[in-house]
Amino acid sequence: MILPRPTHPRKKVPLVKATFMYGPGDVRVETVLDPTIQQPTDAIVRVARACVCGSDLHPYHSMPAGDTAVPMGHELIGVVEEIGAAVTTLRKGDFVIAPFSFSDNTCSFCRDGFHTACKHGGFYGSPETGGLQAQLARIPLADGSLVVVPGVTENDTELFPSLLTLSDVYLTGYHAAHMGRVQPGKTVTVIGDGAVGLSAVLAAKQLGAERIILMGRHRARTDLGIEFGATDVVAARGDEGIAQVLELTGGEGSHIVLEAVGHMPAYVQSYGVVRPGGVISRVGVPQYEDAPVGFGSLFGKNITLTGGPAPVRAYLEEAIQQVLDGTINPGKVFDRTIGIDDIAAGYAAMDAREALKVMVTP
Amino acid sequence: MILPRPTHPRKKVPLVKATFMYGPGDVRVETVLDPTIQQPTDAIVRVARACVCGSDLHPYHSMPAGDTAVPMGHELIGVVEEIGAAVTTLRKGDFVIAPFSFSDNTCSFCRDGFHTACKHGGFYGSPETGGLQAQLARIPLADGSLVVVPGVTENDTELFPSLLTLSDVYLTGYHAAHMGRVQPGKTVTVIGDGAVGLSAVLAAKQLGAERIILMGRHRARTDLGIEFGATDVVAARGDEGIAQVLELTGGEGSHIVLEAVGHMPAYVQSYGVVRPGGVISRVGVPQYEDAPVGFGSLFGKNITLTGGPAPVRAYLEEAIQQVLDGTINPGKVFDRTIGIDDIAAGYAAMDAREALKVMVTP
Repeated sequence: MILPRPTHPRKKVPLVKATFMYGPGDVRVETVLDPTIQQPTDAIVRVARACVCGSDLHPYHSMPAGDTAVPMGHELIGVVEEIGAAVTTLRKGDFVIAPFSFSDNTCSFCRDGFHTACKHGGFYGSPETGGLQAQLARIPLADGSLVVVPGVTENDTELFPSLLTLSDVYLTGYHAAHMGRVQPGKTVTVIGDGAVGLSAVLAAKQLGAERIILMGRHRARTDLGIEFGATDVVAARGDEGIAQVLELTGGEGSHIVLEAVGHMPAYVQSYGVVRPGGVISRVGVPQYEDAPVGFGSLFGKNITLTGGPAPVRAYLEEAIQQVLDGTINPGKVFDRTIGIDDIAAGYAAMDAREALKVMVTP
Repeated sequence: MILPRPTHPRKKVPLVKATFMYGPGDVRVETVLDPTIQQPTDAIVRVARACVCGSDLHPYHSMPAGDTAVPMGHELIGVVEEIGAAVTTLRKGDFVIAPFSFSDNTCSFCRDGFHTACKHGGFYGSPETGGLQAQLARIPLADGSLVVVPGVTENDTELFPSLLTLSDVYLTGYHAAHMGRVQPGKTVTVIGDGAVGLSAVLAAKQLGAERIILMGRHRARTDLGIEFGATDVVAARGDEGIAQVLELTGGEGSHIVLEAVGHMPAYVQSYGVVRPGGVISRVGVPQYEDAPVGFGSLFGKNITLTGGPAPVRAYLEEAIQQVLDGTINPGKVFDRTIGIDDIAAGYAAMDAREALKVMVTP
C-alpha cells in the first residue's frame, strides 16, 4: 500500500500520514511516501479537513482480513499544493472541495449531470488513487473534480464543517431530494436519521417541501432533523411506522420518500408509506440486489423508484454559495472532531452511534 | 354470473350477449340479463366496439378451471343508453369512450393524474361490475369515467378503431412515454412489438423523441412500428439485443426505455440498454414481484424505474382531439375484426400471434 516515492526535488516533507483499513474494526494510520503527480491532469491537495462516512462502516463490518490494506476516505477540503502540466483552472494555494468521486466534467454523462457515471472518472480508495483520510491527496482529473471556494482560505475554519459536507454527505441528501423531485407543497418522508438522512431533510426544506416527516429513533439526531426542517418525527419502524406515517398523511401517504439507509427494511418501509404516483429516491447504498418491484409494491401504485450515487460535482457551485451566504449550515452533522492519529477511535465512535459524523484534522 | 334482471319497464331487449372465461383457453359468449343502473352514478352504455387486450391472455393461460366464470373485457366505445339520477355530464345518445378502469375523477389521487389509484374507482371483470366485451355495459362513476367524443355518432365507423385504442392500448403506450419523460432530443428504446409496444412508439414520436429503437422480432409488427416512428429495429434479444442497442447508441445506451412486455427477460434487457441517469418506464404488467434494483442493476447508474397501470382518463381529452384532427391514427394496431359470437376465435388468434389486436363488433 506504499505510494511511490516522489521525484519532485522541492518537496520538503516526503512522508505523510494516511488511513488504511486492514480488516473488520481494524483501522490504522500509516506513514507513507507522499502522493505525486502521475498524470498531467492530476493535482495534489493538502488536506484541511477530511471525515469518516457512514459507508466506510460497511467494510468496517464486512471486509475480509488479509495482507492487503485498503486506503480509506473520499471526502476532503484543502489547499492545492501542486498541479499537473495540463491543469488549467486551478492554482497552487486555491482552497478547494473534492467531490467523493472524480470526473472529467466534460463527457456526455457528466453533461447530463451524472458525474458518478463519468466515462473517465472513478472512486477513491483503490491502490491507484489512494484515500482522502490523509494529509496529502492526489486528485485525478483535477480540472473536472476540484471546485475552488471563492474567497476562502485556510484561516476560515468556522466554514470548514459545512464546506466539508459538500464533498459528500449534504449533497448526497440533496441528490435524494433532487431525484425525488421535491418541490413546494409536497409531503416528504425521510427514512434514516444518520448524517445523510438529516442532510436530506435540510435539502427537502431548501427545495420547498411543505411537510417533512423524519423516520428515526435517536432523539439527538431527530432533534437536529427538526432544526433542519422536519415537521414530524416517527420513531416507530416496520408496520407500526408505516401506519403512523399514513395516519399523519390522512391515509394517503407521502408524495416523496427519501431513503437514506440502504437496508431492505427501509426499502419495504418506503413503498409502504409512499402515495400512489409518488417517488422513492434512494441514496443509501443498497445492501441487497433483488427487491419487490411488481404489482403489489411499486407497479400497482405507479411508484417511481430513483436515486443512486450522488453526482456531487453537479450541485457544488450552487451549494457553495448557499454555505457562504449562510442559507444552509449542513456542517451541524459533525458532532466530533479528532486528529488523524486518532481516526480509529472516530470509526469506533460512529460505529457505536456515539458520534453522528466525525471530522478529521490532519 | 347472471346479472340481476332489470326492473326498468321500458326496456325492450332484456337479454344481451357478454363474454366469459371459464378456464384456460375456454372463452364463451353467454346470453345474460342486461345490466341495469345500480347506483345513481351509473350509466348503461350500448357497445359500438369492444376489443381483446394482451392482458386478457394472462388468464387465458393461467386461470384455474372451475365452476365460476369471469366476465371479460375492459375496453369499449359506445352510446349512452341510460343514466343514473346523479349523472350530470352525460345524456342518452352521447358517444363515449370508457377508460379501462373507472374512477370518480375528483379524489386527490385522480387530481394528481393517477386515476387507476382512484379512492372510489376500480377495474372491470368482477361479478359486481361485469366485463365490457358485451353488447351492453354498466359503467360505475359515469361522470368521472366516461368521456364524450364531441361530434361523433354511431355512423362514424372509420374513427372507431383509433377511438377504441384510447380506452386502453394507445394511452397505455402513451403513459409509458409520459412517465419516462420522453422529450425532444431523447433516444428511446421500446421493448416489445405487441399493440402496447407499438403504441409506445407512436406516443414517443408524438412527444418528440429523436430516435426510437424498437426491439421486436415480428416483421409485420415492427413494420407498423416503423410507420409509427421507429427509427431502428433490433430483432435480437438478451445479451445480443443489448449489445446491438448499445452499438446503435455509441456505447452510451438509451435515455429512456419503454418496457411493454412484463416478463423478467424484458426487465433485464431494460437495465442492460439504459443510459446512466436514464429512465425505465414499465407498462407491461409485471409477471414477477422481485427483480434486481441494487448497485449492479439500477442504483449504480442512477437509473429511474417508473410506470404502472395507465391513468387513461388523465390523457383522454387531448388524445381524442389528436384522433379527430388526424394527428395520430393508433387504430392501425387492429388487424382483425370479428363479431362477438366469434370472440373465442379472436382470443385464439391473438394467442397464436396470428392477430396483433382484435376488434369486436357487438
